[in-house]
Amino acid sequence: MTPADVQDRVTEIARRRGFFWPSFEIYGGLSGFYTYGDLGTKLKRNVENAWRESFVRRQGFLELETPIINASRVFEASGHLDHFKEYMVECARCGLVFRADHIVEEETGLENLEAIGLDGFAKFLREGEVRCPGCGGEFKEPIMILTMFQTSIGATGGEVGYARPETAQGMFLNFRRGFQNAREKLPFALAQVGKVLRNEISPRRGLLRVREFTIMELELFFDPQQPSCPFFKEVSDEEITLLTEETMAKGERTPLELTLQEAVEGGHIQTEWQAYFMGVSKRFISHLGVPARRQRFRAHLPEERSHYSAQTFDHEVRLESWGWIEVAGHAYRTDYDLKAHQQGAGVDMSALRPDGTRVVPHVVEPSFGLDRLVHVALESSYRRKKKRSILALPRSIAPISVSVLPLVTKDGLPEKAAEVHKLLLEAGLVAAYDDSGSIGRRYARADEIGTPVAVTIDYDTLEDETVTLRDRDSWSQVRQGTRNLPGLLRRLFKGEIGFSDLGDPI
Amino acid sequence: MTPADVQDRVTEIARRRGFFWPSFEIYGGLSGFYTYGDLGTKLKRNVENAWRESFVRRQGFLELETPIINASRVFEASGHLDHFKEYMVECARCGLVFRADHIVEEETGLENLEAIGLDGFAKFLREGEVRCPGCGGEFKEPIMILTMFQTSIGATGGEVGYARPETAQGMFLNFRRGFQNAREKLPFALAQVGKVLRNEISPRRGLLRVREFTIMELELFFDPQQPSCPFFKEVSDEEITLLTEETMAKGERTPLELTLQEAVEGGHIQTEWQAYFMGVSKRFISHLGVPARRQRFRAHLPEERSHYSAQTFDHEVRLESWGWIEVAGHAYRTDYDLKAHQQGAGVDMSALRPDGTRVVPHVVEPSFGLDRLVHVALESSYRRKKKRSILALPRSIAPISVSVLPLVTKDGLPEKAAEVHKLLLEAGLVAAYDDSGSIGRRYARADEIGTPVAVTIDYDTLEDETVTLRDRDSWSQVRQGTRNLPGLLRRLFKGEIGFSDLGDPI
Repeated sequence: MTPADVQDRVTEIARRRGFFWPSFEIYGGLSGFYTYGDLGTKLKRNVENAWRESFVRRQGFLELETPIINASRVFEASGHLDHFKEYMVECARCGLVFRADHIVEEETGLENLEAIGLDGFAKFLREGEVRCPGCGGEFKEPIMILTMFQTSIGATGGEVGYARPETAQGMFLNFRRGFQNAREKLPFALAQVGKVLRNEISPRRGLLRVREFTIMELELFFDPQQPSCPFFKEVSDEEITLLTEETMAKGERTPLELTLQEAVEGGHIQTEWQAYFMGVSKRFISHLGVPARRQRFRAHLPEERSHYSAQTFDHEVRLESWGWIEVAGHAYRTDYDLKAHQQGAGVDMSALRPDGTRVVPHVVEPSFGLDRLVHVALESSYRRKKKRSILALPRSIAPISVSVLPLVTKDGLPEKAAEVHKLLLEAGLVAAYDDSGSIGRRYARADEIGTPVAVTIDYDTLEDETVTLRDRDSWSQVRQGTRNLPGLLRRLFKGEIGFSDLGDPI
Repeated sequence: MTPADVQDRVTEIARRRGFFWPSFEIYGGLSGFYTYGDLGTKLKRNVENAWRESFVRRQGFLELETPIINASRVFEASGHLDHFKEYMVECARCGLVFRADHIVEEETGLENLEAIGLDGFAKFLREGEVRCPGCGGEFKEPIMILTMFQTSIGATGGEVGYARPETAQGMFLNFRRGFQNAREKLPFALAQVGKVLRNEISPRRGLLRVREFTIMELELFFDPQQPSCPFFKEVSDEEITLLTEETMAKGERTPLELTLQEAVEGGHIQTEWQAYFMGVSKRFISHLGVPARRQRFRAHLPEERSHYSAQTFDHEVRLESWGWIEVAGHAYRTDYDLKAHQQGAGVDMSALRPDGTRVVPHVVEPSFGLDRLVHVALESSYRRKKKRSILALPRSIAPISVSVLPLVTKDGLPEKAAEVHKLLLEAGLVAAYDDSGSIGRRYARADEIGTPVAVTIDYDTLEDETVTLRDRDSWSQVRQGTRNLPGLLRRLFKGEIGFSDLGDPI
């Protein structure tokens, strides 16, 4: 299979089986908007919950939910009104618009060009005689445009507002309340999962660059005089692949292979907290089915970094379809944001130290795009076996856990199967019932959406209350009594036992 | 306690302990926007999950997630551009704006006046000589304004878009894909939980009327020639309090008390599906801690109903603070929406019957405002006991399930408590650790946020591995071994056992 094949097949399954598809289809579509169907909604929620388990479920780590629409004064203080912009070029002939960096990157094969600035793009476009991919026309001069959605708040439209392009500002605005709820002790964290909107110039690549998406962010507040992370030892032995700032600056792409402990001691990662979250990040992405060899961390060069960051690493994953793509950003935001709002709002954002001095806390932020992770999980799980498509999704994130299948639709088998289906639902499992078509076709249907276990009810079930369990990946089968099913399946999905522990081989 | 006391106390706890508070506090606020803290985020998610369990976890009931921003052509076809408007009056002197219906209702004591129209409001305002509550000035003539947030989609701003004021249109737009994923069989359902935005003229009453909130909606598609609901018998014996259309039309407020079966047979509820969801609705709201005597269903009069509805019931709850408020709308939308999009998009929205004829399905919709339910659950759970505040939240929705408390912070008790805390976290329980202040103060702190069980580690724990369990509501205590805790607590939170089954009384 070529990379394009994988991409096409995953997209086709996603659309036909109801993971996701482009929105507003019946109205001719609207680029940059996607709709999740039943399977996609469930998969996305499972990934979100796995993130919460990995990053948030700790004493002193608090969750927030803040508004999507914010008054413009918030984004004035945060720097977004000045900085949340992209380089745009417009075709002088047909009027199509593109991101200047994407056009130039595609033309030149160079990467991460955002830092070259307006003049840089103008020069590239002029000297490379780059034309519109749509009509072949010439481009106008590139310009910078704000990519936040603007609206008016209030009946009389008096107040300008913007949809947030990230959730982080919500955490900074509510730092004082959060700090109070954390008993005024550093370190503590505020985390949020929520919708963000970006008025992208040219949305593309399916779920990878969309105008509306879900972000999962955590802001860890710490005293820069007490920078050590008490949890660091949990991940310090984790080996990572690291493209350092020095390597990047030399234009090289040969990464270091080292432990997080070594990366901190070698001065490659400035703070233990950032190293800790990079370790959690690697384990979390592995948990979604991406092997370590397809993961790396890439440092941003100073000119590539956002205005608020002292050090940023992109956590990247290598896909067959699109090569290395960013799945998370790990930014050391220092005290930039709290100080910006301290000044913007005229409110004290400092914390009291035990010794009586005060400090504006520093911030380390891991930030994930949830929709990308759905794509990554799907593409990473795609397998072909005997000309059939299988999504070998990790059991813990598969949208449907168990499929219940009567062998035939007569002689009381559907009734018995409905009984087993009910038993599994009541045990809290996500179970589907399927009685349509041959048993082979139903197995194929379950494999295609990544359902880890199929439970088949046959004539023996009526006699001795045993059923056949079939494994999605190996297609092997075991036999077990219905009474033990809920407990055994729960242990399987917790990862406590393997498929072969579910019963006697057939 | 007066009703105002309850309201004040719940709001004060919500703000201080981190359930919710007005957004943008440090920037002077922005009315109609609320922020959830850690406890609020957890409570809200628990209510959402309870809704999903009650309404969605059924074969053939599919979930969706559709965009917040929609192109204007969607809302043109759906009728929102014409109908999603409110009556506004503006003070001629100070410029303050109000909803005309609220101003007139407050002045006259009449209810549900929306249907009287522009001329009606103008007349009321003129004849009642109603003045601005802010400055005493006179009002201008009332006008109607669109209360959707408007924005521009795309870099060049070519396309007008609106933030959705409800999620239902997302289900109708994707009816064909959903129908395909439901194996092209009626009845089936599409459900969605998501953010919606309404540019309210005068947001008020805390979480009750806000500009950004979360809605939980389900659209049940059925063939009007096959209108029976196969699940109706599960709830048909449920007794409800019903204000019928006839009663309302007479201006009376004496409700019927009858079973859903009787309500259907008596012709008060037009379809079995609607009656089914009203039964589920009553059980769901009871599950949040609202007793039956504080619930009723109120029929809309024809002139009060939305443009798409043939019959609507508001599910109302009586609060100490605000009297009867709507927590859900149950609307019989017929084939209005599918036909509107069939015409707007020029796409066939019919389903094939087994007999070869085609039908545009009819729709019944239960719709809940999640934020209101958070308020309702909090206010309904508020108790006073020995001058202390207790939130007697149902165990299944309490944000924190267990609080782990070392009796003193020395002699190895904190270490032992940390061990028990870890044990409970690993068992999947939402457990908090608290070692700050006297044990009595920590019990009070846990009661105030509704934590059902406190686990105290004392000197005996070091000897015999037993702990004290304390009940939030009765303050009674039992003794149990740590080894049995995870299993027993899980059963308690599932409702399988009561507090006194947790151990030996002390």
